[in-house]
Amino acid sequence: MSKRLPLTRIVAQLSPTIPFVGPETLERRLGRPFDVRVGANESAFGISSKAKEAMAAAVEQLCWYNDPENFDLRTALSARHHVALDEICVAAGIDDLLGLVVRIFVEPGDPVVSAQGSYPTFAFHVSGFGGRAEGVPYRDDRVDLDGMLAKVKETGAHLVYIANPDNPMGTWHEADELNRFVQALPADCIALVDEAYADFAPTAAIGPMDASADRRLIRTRTFSKAHGMAGARIGYAAAHADLVAELEKVRNHFGVNRVAQAGALASLADEPFIRGVVAAVDEGRADYTRMARDLGLTTVASATNFVCFDMGSSERAVTTLHALQQRGVFVRMPSSPPQNRCIRVTVGLPQDRRRFETILKEVLAK
Amino acid sequence: MSKRLPLTRIVAQLSPTIPFVGPETLERRLGRPFDVRVGANESAFGISSKAKEAMAAAVEQLCWYNDPENFDLRTALSARHHVALDEICVAAGIDDLLGLVVRIFVEPGDPVVSAQGSYPTFAFHVSGFGGRAEGVPYRDDRVDLDGMLAKVKETGAHLVYIANPDNPMGTWHEADELNRFVQALPADCIALVDEAYADFAPTAAIGPMDASADRRLIRTRTFSKAHGMAGARIGYAAAHADLVAELEKVRNHFGVNRVAQAGALASLADEPFIRGVVAAVDEGRADYTRMARDLGLTTVASATNFVCFDMGSSERAVTTLHALQQRGVFVRMPSSPPQNRCIRVTVGLPQDRRRFETILKEVLAK
Repeated sequence: MSKRLPLTRIVAQLSPTIPFVGPETLERRLGRPFDVRVGANESAFGISSKAKEAMAAAVEQLCWYNDPENFDLRTALSARHHVALDEICVAAGIDDLLGLVVRIFVEPGDPVVSAQGSYPTFAFHVSGFGGRAEGVPYRDDRVDLDGMLAKVKETGAHLVYIANPDNPMGTWHEADELNRFVQALPADCIALVDEAYADFAPTAAIGPMDASADRRLIRTRTFSKAHGMAGARIGYAAAHADLVAELEKVRNHFGVNRVAQAGALASLADEPFIRGVVAAVDEGRADYTRMARDLGLTTVASATNFVCFDMGSSERAVTTLHALQQRGVFVRMPSSPPQNRCIRVTVGLPQDRRRFETILKEVLAK
Repeated sequence: MSKRLPLTRIVAQLSPTIPFVGPETLERRLGRPFDVRVGANESAFGISSKAKEAMAAAVEQLCWYNDPENFDLRTALSARHHVALDEICVAAGIDDLLGLVVRIFVEPGDPVVSAQGSYPTFAFHVSGFGGRAEGVPYRDDRVDLDGMLAKVKETGAHLVYIANPDNPMGTWHEADELNRFVQALPADCIALVDEAYADFAPTAAIGPMDASADRRLIRTRTFSKAHGMAGARIGYAAAHADLVAELEKVRNHFGVNRVAQAGALASLADEPFIRGVVAAVDEGRADYTRMARDLGLTTVASATNFVCFDMGSSERAVTTLHALQQRGVFVRMPSSPPQNRCIRVTVGLPQDRRRFETILKEVLAK
């Protein structure tokens, strides 16, 4: 028996990283469950009752495979966004889509541009396919579009990733700025714009879907946030049909489960529910801003379902994060300086926020 | 705007294939739903009531992400199979696992050995990662282990795929034969043994899990077949911890949905339910054998939840398959000669089998 596995060069050189340590893992380490789970930008406001009903019915039919074409959902999404059916690709969450996009565009050794410290799962896929991450520091806690464009030109990258609104910072750019950015890209560079938090953003930040307009632009959305279906694993991309056709060549065709398909379809139709969630999140963000002020802290303006509390230094952010976790409150924090001076707190239910406030006060008093 | 997308060499050269056209797609083409769905080896015997209950409860919690470590299920699987926790990798079905295994072992241009005409999704992943499929013809409708071994040695392949029991033929090898095959492999060749149909197979065909014994062996199982959870997308691999650690580096950590996790855990514990399904499938296979005899046909001996009806020639198999589909019966057929002389029929409920028999008789009478 060989001492070494016959791994590909890329995998042999990969360090064993994972994008996120899940709250369940932290709970197992801490030996206690979290009382307040406001660390993973999940939606404590739950799921549309219509989606729940559709999913309960889908459970009864789970002995049948899912439709690999995701036809019904793609039809509904195409009507919603006024794009063609072949401009939509449904997958098992944006995480799945990020992997597919990296896979079709990134050769081993290729540079890939993103904001330094942005969504770790994208970076996970870039290194997983042998790409070279070229991080551009944030500018005033916002993605630095000019810096990204310069980095694309400097490195010759064929792929640039922008989350808009951004995670982990919550900041955003207006759609016009983004459009100008895409227009200024070299002809052979694809912009992957991750709009996971689009539902919470101001109208001006999110332009209409216009998938056929530019082959260089791919946008992703999820049912994990406003729709409250994080555990279902379903999201989609809108892009030029030529680009979607390439994703079709490599995606896991039976990768989206039947419960998620049914839930997403029903949730998409339940607009009043989503409006209610968005309103509740608006209220929660305002609550966090007020809370921070009361505690002598500031927050970073956010267009998402989370808020970054500025703790002044990375040391204080780390200490606070650990102290909160020890006291049963799950939060996360950005990884790169100077953004790692913050802790990132998801908008929870009013009672979660009260509990968070009480415990944060205790922690800060020490 | 560039005329061409900046695709990787592998993807640019890929032809737009998909592993399976789903029954829903066929229904849309035919303009009518199938009355009898016995083409995708789904389990018409449904889901354990305990699993259903667990999944209904999980739907209520879907606003929370799934545990990316699949800890509870891996713990249960490790106890069931007497293997260590780090010898189990859970993923979104075997399809997902096949992609991961190909990804970590296959460099562009590398030969990969499998039976000619075996599970199309494996071939899809091999070409999707730029590998070169080296097919070995079946021998008497069984995977030709000697031929596979010779092909591995001839080509220097680092990966060989065997479904045991086999899909699409339903035939099998005993565990002892498989073990001898693995022992005879070169030190740098991994055997990927797909045991999707293990629950239906005779005891002698499926050896005990002994993941730490040989780093060259990886075995996959699914909840899609006997457990009746095809639409949930969940399966697992058992292998040496060193191999599982490599899968960890590249898998989609949040890729298994929460409903599937809960359902698999509950279904695994419901052994009486699985025994009932297996007994019902045994009965159904015997029924198909009898049916074939009555119609003057033969069947291929099967250790799965499907049976291949020998139609004598590929022409007659194709004609029969289309005639059945036109009359509302969904079946599939193997792709390679001479196995494509068969149609592959899944064991359905007794009433499905009656309906299939009636329509097959009509078709053959023409």
